[in-house]
Amino acid sequence: MLLPQINQPGDLKKLPSEQLAPLAQEIRQFLIENLSVTGGHLASNLGVVELTLALHYCYESPKDKFIFDVGHQAYVHKILTGRQDRFDTLRKYKGLCGFVKRAESEHDVWEAGHSSTSLSAAMGMAMARDLKGESNKVVAVIGDGALTGGMAFEALNHIGHEKKNLLVVLNDNEMSIAPNVGAMHNYLSRVRSDRHYLRAKDDVESLIKKIPAIGGKLARTAEKVKDSLKYMMVPGVLFEELGFKYIGPIDGHDLPTLMETFRQSDNVDGPVLVHIVTTKGKGYKPAEADSHKWHGISPYKIESGKTLKSAGNPMYTEVFGSTLIELAEQDERIVAVTPAMPGGSGLMEFAARFPKRMIDVGIAEQHAATLCAAMAMEGMKPVFAVYSTFMQRAYDQIVHDICRHNANVMFAIDRAGFVGADGETHQGVYDIAFLRHIPNMVLMMPKDENELRHMMKTALDYDKGPIGFRYPRVNGLGVPLDQQLKAIPIGSWETVREGDNCAILAVGPMVQTALAAAELLKSSGIQASVVNARFLKPLDEKMLTDLADRGVKLLVMEEASQAGGLGSAVLEFYASHGISHAEVRILGVPDCFIEHGSIKEQQQEAGLTAEHAADLVRESVTGSRLALKSGLPS
Amino acid sequence: MLLPQINQPGDLKKLPSEQLAPLAQEIRQFLIENLSVTGGHLASNLGVVELTLALHYCYESPKDKFIFDVGHQAYVHKILTGRQDRFDTLRKYKGLCGFVKRAESEHDVWEAGHSSTSLSAAMGMAMARDLKGESNKVVAVIGDGALTGGMAFEALNHIGHEKKNLLVVLNDNEMSIAPNVGAMHNYLSRVRSDRHYLRAKDDVESLIKKIPAIGGKLARTAEKVKDSLKYMMVPGVLFEELGFKYIGPIDGHDLPTLMETFRQSDNVDGPVLVHIVTTKGKGYKPAEADSHKWHGISPYKIESGKTLKSAGNPMYTEVFGSTLIELAEQDERIVAVTPAMPGGSGLMEFAARFPKRMIDVGIAEQHAATLCAAMAMEGMKPVFAVYSTFMQRAYDQIVHDICRHNANVMFAIDRAGFVGADGETHQGVYDIAFLRHIPNMVLMMPKDENELRHMMKTALDYDKGPIGFRYPRVNGLGVPLDQQLKAIPIGSWETVREGDNCAILAVGPMVQTALAAAELLKSSGIQASVVNARFLKPLDEKMLTDLADRGVKLLVMEEASQAGGLGSAVLEFYASHGISHAEVRILGVPDCFIEHGSIKEQQQEAGLTAEHAADLVRESVTGSRLALKSGLPS
Repeated sequence: MLLPQINQPGDLKKLPSEQLAPLAQEIRQFLIENLSVTGGHLASNLGVVELTLALHYCYESPKDKFIFDVGHQAYVHKILTGRQDRFDTLRKYKGLCGFVKRAESEHDVWEAGHSSTSLSAAMGMAMARDLKGESNKVVAVIGDGALTGGMAFEALNHIGHEKKNLLVVLNDNEMSIAPNVGAMHNYLSRVRSDRHYLRAKDDVESLIKKIPAIGGKLARTAEKVKDSLKYMMVPGVLFEELGFKYIGPIDGHDLPTLMETFRQSDNVDGPVLVHIVTTKGKGYKPAEADSHKWHGISPYKIESGKTLKSAGNPMYTEVFGSTLIELAEQDERIVAVTPAMPGGSGLMEFAARFPKRMIDVGIAEQHAATLCAAMAMEGMKPVFAVYSTFMQRAYDQIVHDICRHNANVMFAIDRAGFVGADGETHQGVYDIAFLRHIPNMVLMMPKDENELRHMMKTALDYDKGPIGFRYPRVNGLGVPLDQQLKAIPIGSWETVREGDNCAILAVGPMVQTALAAAELLKSSGIQASVVNARFLKPLDEKMLTDLADRGVKLLVMEEASQAGGLGSAVLEFYASHGISHAEVRILGVPDCFIEHGSIKEQQQEAGLTAEHAADLVRESVTGSRLALKSGLPS
Repeated sequence: MLLPQINQPGDLKKLPSEQLAPLAQEIRQFLIENLSVTGGHLASNLGVVELTLALHYCYESPKDKFIFDVGHQAYVHKILTGRQDRFDTLRKYKGLCGFVKRAESEHDVWEAGHSSTSLSAAMGMAMARDLKGESNKVVAVIGDGALTGGMAFEALNHIGHEKKNLLVVLNDNEMSIAPNVGAMHNYLSRVRSDRHYLRAKDDVESLIKKIPAIGGKLARTAEKVKDSLKYMMVPGVLFEELGFKYIGPIDGHDLPTLMETFRQSDNVDGPVLVHIVTTKGKGYKPAEADSHKWHGISPYKIESGKTLKSAGNPMYTEVFGSTLIELAEQDERIVAVTPAMPGGSGLMEFAARFPKRMIDVGIAEQHAATLCAAMAMEGMKPVFAVYSTFMQRAYDQIVHDICRHNANVMFAIDRAGFVGADGETHQGVYDIAFLRHIPNMVLMMPKDENELRHMMKTALDYDKGPIGFRYPRVNGLGVPLDQQLKAIPIGSWETVREGDNCAILAVGPMVQTALAAAELLKSSGIQASVVNARFLKPLDEKMLTDLADRGVKLLVMEEASQAGGLGSAVLEFYASHGISHAEVRILGVPDCFIEHGSIKEQQQEAGLTAEHAADLVRESVTGSRLALKSGLPS
């Protein structure tokens, strides 16, 4: 066994290069075994075993900087940099992060989670290096999927112009998470299939010699013809045109070629793009066969490849997907738009049922949003299905193109609230705060999956501008689903439990937590109302005015940033209407990034528990001051 | 005179095509004369006179859709669609908008202001058209500068894949606002200089014939060689690789060729990119000579080209620029990063002084932000100089790459607050709301230009994470500038006027307005304090606690979205600390988009006046309720 001897990249360098291939096999085995217990991003990591070995063998981390786009493919890097013994804690609370994490190792120099940032990061590090007069290598590893994100192109455009020394490894596995779409993908496919060009190099040269020497008027044209033959040697003309030296495509599982290519690239002055072709899931049959499913996987049986997913109520995502089909059957205007997440967004069945009305734009949230605006202005009802965290990419387009145009776009905002194992880069806790201040926006969150269905109907019927419904990454409550869908009056809240002089205004899953808090309070003799504050914007102003007039003390409870959230909206309402007798407290996500773990652990850390809510209400009612439970800045 | 007869595109079509050239001259004259009085975007409109004429002559607006990227080059379109008589009101309050405006005309189908949205919009309209089974033409007009924006690439990638029928006119004038940068620009330059390729077409064909017929092993290679010769006919290989039919480059001032090209493009199935080369400022010597200066221009003398700018105190932007030079002289870590706005951001002198430390990334806010994060992590002190409104594009990168990494990036947020004539697409009123909820962020705004200088020093000295200072698009107050710069304690506010039982907490220019309000209140016998709330985050919690404990009634006043702004922050602070006896009112920008006009008119419309503030304070103090002055939803 070689792997146990590798505790840092220096150990790797001591191995003769012939031992790298057997080491690669051990790493694959390690990944397959460990992830069968913890789950995680198996397929992409199996795809980069040789690449990661070659990088650490050829270069000197951390002096040389490796930047992994998204960072979910850095497990091999973690294995080689002293973290083998922590893989049983992968993606668990206080355990090893599923992405690159600077706090874990000096070899982790750049964190991500969202796609397409690596080229900008590499360029920043290269520019800083040159300004400081240093000379380390900077390497960005980016997938073909991430390359469709606009900011990757912005970076290519800048890098190709400035001609800084840096190495981009384009890890082309023909997938982002779902199969890739887009013209760039088609282009890369052509490049891959043109690999025989390289082999034909000698043939071409002898052919050029056969072109007769030409003088006079045609001489210049003949020169141009000879010049243009370079395109045959250079399949990556698109990258060459953008100022890169292109090398490839090469087999990303061929260690000697990889290392030879990196050495070659070191002799080039300026940016180099090495195009490698890899197989997602390489070396584990079930993952090779269905790398989409095996992108992020729950624990599984190694032999059968069967995942050990516990059965439960349908996820909100699934209810969204099936309801959208129902609605689309009745309304031809509905089109679904996804930025490369057809599966994650529960749209696979919709896509099969309505292929022409399913638009996967690739990793391109900005384009997706503006595309929706234009379709809506032409009479369609686009549904922008997007995770809360990725919606951040489209903030400007939502302001400038959707809300300013007051376009009838429906937002299906998935993974709202804590997301569990993906951790801080993926938390969906800012969308209320970044959407609420945009004029014309309507925003809802259901207390259960049945209400989600009614909200979708509400959104479909609403024709006065943009409207969004957000829902969490959890199983539904298992409530019965109404067949007849009815629009909910815009801005109406619902009292789900009647009480006396205090009320908890709760959002989404927090309605259940608030009900539990009310039960706790009952034992202290306090009868708390619980309100399902299902509209984040507009508010139920009548209910708020009534509550204030009746002197009811309020606690607003939301699994979302406390700054700028529903609590703020309630406070603003009272303040701007000069209602100074309202007493409001708020309990939301505090002003810090919450790391990976289970959603329950994250709620606990944020203080979003029934116990804490009950304490705060008790404190309001009795007038006493208690310490905050979360221990975090509030 | 032809122009007075043209009140709609139908009138244009009645003219014989020979009369278009003289009409173009009349339009130029019209623009030069009218804009000499109103100011506006002269250079870009002079560049698209022939293009706009050709589009309206060849196609049928509004059935066919013209989408102008950014939209500041739509003046000619406005002239041709019945708005000649309103040009004296251009960019004035309630007057003609400086951008495309749907409320003005059925021929205005897509509004913008921010760059790079036109391709997504065109694609959305083309997809909606096809889903509805209609057959209109969709044309996007986009400049070479706008093409560097990442979302334009996202759209190219999608369009080239889906093969929808649409026409992209690439208006290549070698400029965005500043001279263009980036690899795409370099590429287009090469394409332009390769125009003789087209003329050499016949030569090439005869050359191909000269290649001897080859059999056997070389036959396939010979075919490939012949194929590759297409690159000589197709200078736009980059666009062809992305799935477009490329036509060009052609002279964008040559009307017959333009029209012939558009007719040709109609016969192509799938997306077409027509590359036209135009001269910004065409036909007006001063604008041709310095199109950067003449991009957006104040009123000028036609003969001399001298602008009639009234002298005033230095703009905040200028003070920023000169102070940055002072600081950069002492601190080598400072680098300035601009997304294509070196002039607008006051950085021309900095660029001349420190060329290596001036980074213009082109229109690429996302890349700029992440680049800054990486440079900061490598020990530099990047200053991301960006307009508040364009910063919206980088929201995700600010959350995910800068604040989550807690990178020492300085944000110089220009045009914060109302921006005047550019209107609703450019208002800088959301940045407090979209930055305040991000962990690790520090955000300031100075009461005058001298304080701006101290804030820049504060930001430079601060080494605990990201820190921003925002400043308005106005002249400074003309206060003396301290030579010795001192850091301001983080989170400290300043009482600028002492009062009794009420206080106005004001932000930036609103400090002056609040002082005026305090004067008004004095005459009613009310002594109001005025606090310069110079930190938006963190708050001066000590002062807030003191004020509440003393029972002082507060009015928070900010030229920024009332939802999620400083007012909310103050309310959240009290609510989350259980301080229920504080009485706070807020006066900010209401929940609607405020159109173009002077900044004063915009403040008036939003109710951000001394009179209104005084009324609200009076109301708090006396306990009476008055109607809001602004008449807008609050």
